[in-house]
Amino acid sequence: MDFNNTHSSIHPTSIIGESSKIGAEVSIGCYSIIGSNVKIGRNTKIGNHVVIHDDSIIGENVRIDDHTDIGKLPMRVATSVLAAAPNLPPCDVGDNCVIGTSAILYRGCNIGNACLIADLSSIRENVSVGNNTIIGRGVSIENNCIIGSFCKLETNVYITAYSTLEDDVFVAPGVVTSNDRFAARLKGKEYVFKGVTIKHGGRIGAQATILPEITIQEEGFAAAGSIVTKDIPRGIVHCGNPAKYMKCVPEDQLLEK
Amino acid sequence: MDFNNTHSSIHPTSIIGESSKIGAEVSIGCYSIIGSNVKIGRNTKIGNHVVIHDDSIIGENVRIDDHTDIGKLPMRVATSVLAAAPNLPPCDVGDNCVIGTSAILYRGCNIGNACLIADLSSIRENVSVGNNTIIGRGVSIENNCIIGSFCKLETNVYITAYSTLEDDVFVAPGVVTSNDRFAARLKGKEYVFKGVTIKHGGRIGAQATILPEITIQEEGFAAAGSIVTKDIPRGIVHCGNPAKYMKCVPEDQLLEK
Amino acid sequence: MDFNNTHSSIHPTSIIGESSKIGAEVSIGCYSIIGSNVKIGRNTKIGNHVVIHDDSIIGENVRIDDHTDIGKLPMRVATSVLAAAPNLPPCDVGDNCVIGTSAILYRGCNIGNACLIADLSSIRENVSVGNNTIIGRGVSIENNCIIGSFCKLETNVYITAYSTLEDDVFVAPGVVTSNDRFAARLKGKEYVFKGVTIKHGGRIGAQATILPEITIQEEGFAAAGSIVTKDIPRGIVHCGNPAKYMKCVPEDQLLEK
Repeated sequence: MDFNNTHSSIHPTSIIGESSKIGAEVSIGCYSIIGSNVKIGRNTKIGNHVVIHDDSIIGENVRIDDHTDIGKLPMRVATSVLAAAPNLPPCDVGDNCVIGTSAILYRGCNIGNACLIADLSSIRENVSVGNNTIIGRGVSIENNCIIGSFCKLETNVYITAYSTLEDDVFVAPGVVTSNDRFAARLKGKEYVFKGVTIKHGGRIGAQATILPEITIQEEGFAAAGSIVTKDIPRGIVHCGNPAKYMKCVPEDQLLEK
Repeated sequence: MDFNNTHSSIHPTSIIGESSKIGAEVSIGCYSIIGSNVKIGRNTKIGNHVVIHDDSIIGENVRIDDHTDIGKLPMRVATSVLAAAPNLPPCDVGDNCVIGTSAILYRGCNIGNACLIADLSSIRENVSVGNNTIIGRGVSIENNCIIGSFCKLETNVYITAYSTLEDDVFVAPGVVTSNDRFAARLKGKEYVFKGVTIKHGGRIGAQATILPEITIQEEGFAAAGSIVTKDIPRGIVHCGNPAKYMKCVPEDQLLEK
Repeated sequence: MDFNNTHSSIHPTSIIGESSKIGAEVSIGCYSIIGSNVKIGRNTKIGNHVVIHDDSIIGENVRIDDHTDIGKLPMRVATSVLAAAPNLPPCDVGDNCVIGTSAILYRGCNIGNACLIADLSSIRENVSVGNNTIIGRGVSIENNCIIGSFCKLETNVYITAYSTLEDDVFVAPGVVTSNDRFAARLKGKEYVFKGVTIKHGGRIGAQATILPEITIQEEGFAAAGSIVTKDIPRGIVHCGNPAKYMKCVPEDQLLEK
């Protein structure tokens, strides 16, 4: 009955759209909905009440938990003058990933192999995530971001649009980033939103706040609770409000050469 | 198969309660549940696994994404002495709104026209939201709040009960407000919870914290990461912990007269 | 049609697994899925699109709202060397509890009587929660935590793994705790993660950040927005970044003897 734990079948209450290709040994729980032209790799386990929208590509050995929504189209206010249907590539989830309960992946996001995308997280369009990265519970990654490999974004982290996190980046719980230095009062200025850049091995402590356009250089560290208003140099720890030089990152916390 | 993208039909697996009125050109995806006495305006598109509870009123040209829950009754601990069923008006969603995946709207909330209520947000009973307001991903608005028109509440903002936000208010990601200056130790005191008041055009920066009963006056600004323990005057920026005078709001960020 | 409000029946679209025992006067809404060997006490009301996984135990007079997921197995990256199925006891929910919409309870969590587990919250494996405790909207409690009775954890609080909260603890909205003082750079060190300890009647103000291994002693208080880097003594308020002595907790806010 609990189809997360069986290995053989598609429950008859689940609905599979035309032209979809389901690999061998895939299991699908109750009341899940697979759209048209979806590809699901072998040995993938899909829970109950999952929705996988048209054209999505799911790898092999993936676990997708209940109530997950994959490949949804971006939203815009109905009266918007923007084009109705942006020309986005399908949502693409690599092999050996785990997607948690009620997670939301948009069309136009690309997830590498062996990632964990935890419960209640959301990843928007035009985002790529590398391999072996952990996206924690409740994390939100906005549109047009690049997230590297072997990163760890912990619970409820917020990555603003137009941000880049290189490989081996660590972001502790509750960190907030921002990308709008005019706080929504552009008034006709030509302005390009720009998020944050966290270079290879950069780290951010719990509940820190990173202001727009900030760069944390390689192995730089923003301490817990800091309000980061200027760039953090390579291998340096900043702390406080506003964040200032505190010390060098301890040798034994640096990445191996 | 992907009923968000069709324009013609109610999937036979969706259940429509008695006395409900469904407008022309409404589409409803798979396994959605529409309660009794619900009204849905023309051209509204409802996704999969949506629940719309009894008596709810949905406008025209609305988009409602998968797993959304509309019109739910407030919760209380089962042993509570409070009345079991408060006498709340139905949940009422205006025309041209977009309601994101897994969003939750309570019975007794009233949403204006052309609002965006993003994924995983929740809005409780006795809340009104004006027109053209954006309620970001994961935002929580507690009971008994008034939110104006043309506001923007960004990701994971928390608006405590008994708060008022006037028109053109901007709240950056991760802002937390509070309403209990005794931190749950009332001990029989007669105390009325009171949240925050953000006047016309007031703004709050990323991850700021606003203490109970605080008012931010017209066009006042709480900087990112500030802990706001006293009122912010009109057109002034406060920052720090505790937040203090920093500067005037730049002229070119003021609203047009 | 709105099965939250009826008192008599299991909707024919809901699926009940073998060996499950459903008490008298239980109602179950549409498209819910009850696994195998589940026990549900009398007069419990289950909404729509709920999933209750195998072996879960639900008490009497419980209200479970739509889209809730109970008893899910922990996740791990598919390539992990950890054992596939940890030997966890079933999820056990006491009498008179209320479980909100889209809440997630893992197998191996144990919830006392008369608790409110609000919308979009999640509680992981090896967690116990006492009686009459309120777990607010969006709260996340990680694995291996002990939460006492008569606690109140408000909206979006994050309790890190290996934490203990004794009875009568109050945690305001947006509080973040942490348990890794090496920020993910262990490099072969033998290290045991250790979260926070909040003793009887301890309180934490809005958006405060509590560093790893910190103890807040009985009735101690971390003020709103504080960054707590050292223990807080009994009955004392700390505030600031880093948090320091501010004053004694006012007499009239102390618990009764």
